[in-house]
Amino acid sequence: MKPVTLKQIAETLNISITTVSKALKDYPDVSKKTKRLVKETAEILNYKPNAFAVNLRTKESKTIGLIIPEVVHHFFSSVIKGIIAQAEKKGYLVIILQSNESYELEKKQIDLLLSKRVDGILISLANASVKFDHINTILEHEVPLVMFDKIAKLVQCSKVIIDDRKAGYKATKHLIDIGCKKIAHFRGPLLPQNSIDRFLGYKKALEDHGITYDPSIVFICNDVSFEEGQNYAEDIIANHKDVDGIFINTDLVAVGALNTFNKNNIKVPEDIAIVGFSNWFMSSVISPSLTTINQPGYKMGRKAFKLLFSEIKKRKAQEPINFKTVELPTDLIIRESTSVKVTSKT
Amino acid sequence: MKPVTLKQIAETLNISITTVSKALKDYPDVSKKTKRLVKETAEILNYKPNAFAVNLRTKESKTIGLIIPEVVHHFFSSVIKGIIAQAEKKGYLVIILQSNESYELEKKQIDLLLSKRVDGILISLANASVKFDHINTILEHEVPLVMFDKIAKLVQCSKVIIDDRKAGYKATKHLIDIGCKKIAHFRGPLLPQNSIDRFLGYKKALEDHGITYDPSIVFICNDVSFEEGQNYAEDIIANHKDVDGIFINTDLVAVGALNTFNKNNIKVPEDIAIVGFSNWFMSSVISPSLTTINQPGYKMGRKAFKLLFSEIKKRKAQEPINFKTVELPTDLIIRESTSVKVTSKT
Repeated sequence: MKPVTLKQIAETLNISITTVSKALKDYPDVSKKTKRLVKETAEILNYKPNAFAVNLRTKESKTIGLIIPEVVHHFFSSVIKGIIAQAEKKGYLVIILQSNESYELEKKQIDLLLSKRVDGILISLANASVKFDHINTILEHEVPLVMFDKIAKLVQCSKVIIDDRKAGYKATKHLIDIGCKKIAHFRGPLLPQNSIDRFLGYKKALEDHGITYDPSIVFICNDVSFEEGQNYAEDIIANHKDVDGIFINTDLVAVGALNTFNKNNIKVPEDIAIVGFSNWFMSSVISPSLTTINQPGYKMGRKAFKLLFSEIKKRKAQEPINFKTVELPTDLIIRESTSVKVTSKT
Repeated sequence: MKPVTLKQIAETLNISITTVSKALKDYPDVSKKTKRLVKETAEILNYKPNAFAVNLRTKESKTIGLIIPEVVHHFFSSVIKGIIAQAEKKGYLVIILQSNESYELEKKQIDLLLSKRVDGILISLANASVKFDHINTILEHEVPLVMFDKIAKLVQCSKVIIDDRKAGYKATKHLIDIGCKKIAHFRGPLLPQNSIDRFLGYKKALEDHGITYDPSIVFICNDVSFEEGQNYAEDIIANHKDVDGIFINTDLVAVGALNTFNKNNIKVPEDIAIVGFSNWFMSSVISPSLTTINQPGYKMGRKAFKLLFSEIKKRKAQEPINFKTVELPTDLIIRESTSVKVTSKT
């Protein structure tokens, strides 16, 4: 069964195609009776208007594009879920592309989405995106854009972020509160704003509590991987025996570190207390379970779509758009990896 | 900057819009010189053809729809990644919808994708989909369809599955090989074919090795959740003290069971050996680490798109389509949860 056409409806009723078309679009020069007849017939025949033709007429695709660095990722898949749930409510479809943290791929994908005439774009930047010409192309095309999680401060658009700096502060202060005196930090790559902000929160917490900042115990995780967690934990064991607490940028890395400490009989939290970030599901089931910052991915996805939707509507109505930056709160989930007061080793 | 139009190119060159349009489409009645001039100007002005108009002309949207039960899920997110990677190679975009395991939602989403005139649909069925009228609608519209993972045997279309029955057999045989005499099964819901097949593999392995099948130690996980794993493990501890091995339908449930056994000082694998299914990342980092069946999600996604793409091409060329069922192999990953020979408790 091929899709039913206007012609088939016209033939069924023995009227012209033009009349059928006008009746379906509620033109005033078609009688009420004919309109009813055409609409009923269209329903019986299961007629679906050609989406391409509807698009040409309304200049809307009712489709948005989403570019994220990685799909197989607890946080990002929660964000995707939030976006598609909210989009579906408003009758929008979501095209998903994965940048693999590559600037080149991200740029290509933006061109593709623009040529598809999506109604708006949501993006969380690749770690490699240090230039923003491709992002500015979106704005030059006057296509609504909302950035989330990994954003560029310099780009003029709406943004949804979490309070990374406060969260980094909160995580570090918790380690200080339970008695840690020498706190290391496994940070994310140098460039994404969220990794910078978590680091700044860490540093500020140390300063506010009279602990000297020591760059030799700040380790950069360029891949944000399980293996980096293992490797830096080995480095801590070998070279930094006085470290009694670690704030780690992402749970995946923290789980790698825990793995190495467990294997080497370093007791967590008695010898070293650990706070992760993101609240991946596995953090609650590993042993010891991991204290972490809960990052509201689903909520972030919903909020990002809501902001985009409001800009799409405003643009259509030719109303002015005021960019907003929404900061979602995070909370500290305390589990076994910090549940015992660490005594000073000095 | 609004998108550049044909009109702007025409005005720039002082020729008619029709000539510009014909030149871009390589019509024979336009001179080579004019064609070159128009194409160069289009490039300089960064002209992008209106995707809607291109779609109307070619009747292709270069977009496919993907419906899956759940996005925040290690296996399905790996499948998504495989699909979008392969689709991108062939210049296709992927619209992703989540059915939340609901038949009603799945039906609505199929209608939506058909009205959007996607070129093809990939689907992994919701557990609640026991009627297939909505799936047959896709075939009636002559839209290429490939089912993967959770399929309906009765629907006539191409399918990508894993060898669930063999895998269930392999998992159970492994428990028998290490000495288990009384093997329970935490199975998935009653209906999805993959959960039926894993159960049948379990049953066959018992029969082939002279172990009597005992339905009182087969537990149905309707939600396939961590909590169900905990609850059924408690049931085993309280009511089935002779159970010395469990084959569990999904790693998430197995991790729940491990959690309860750990809390109750039931030693895994010494008291009860456990084999999971799917090889979620966390299975390798929990303690004890979990023996499991590795399910190739990324590969399944790539294969599903490849099959769909070949059907889209054939349909366009009006060639006959032969439906294929591709069965991907799985393998057993042996870890700590089965690493010690279990001695008989009788």
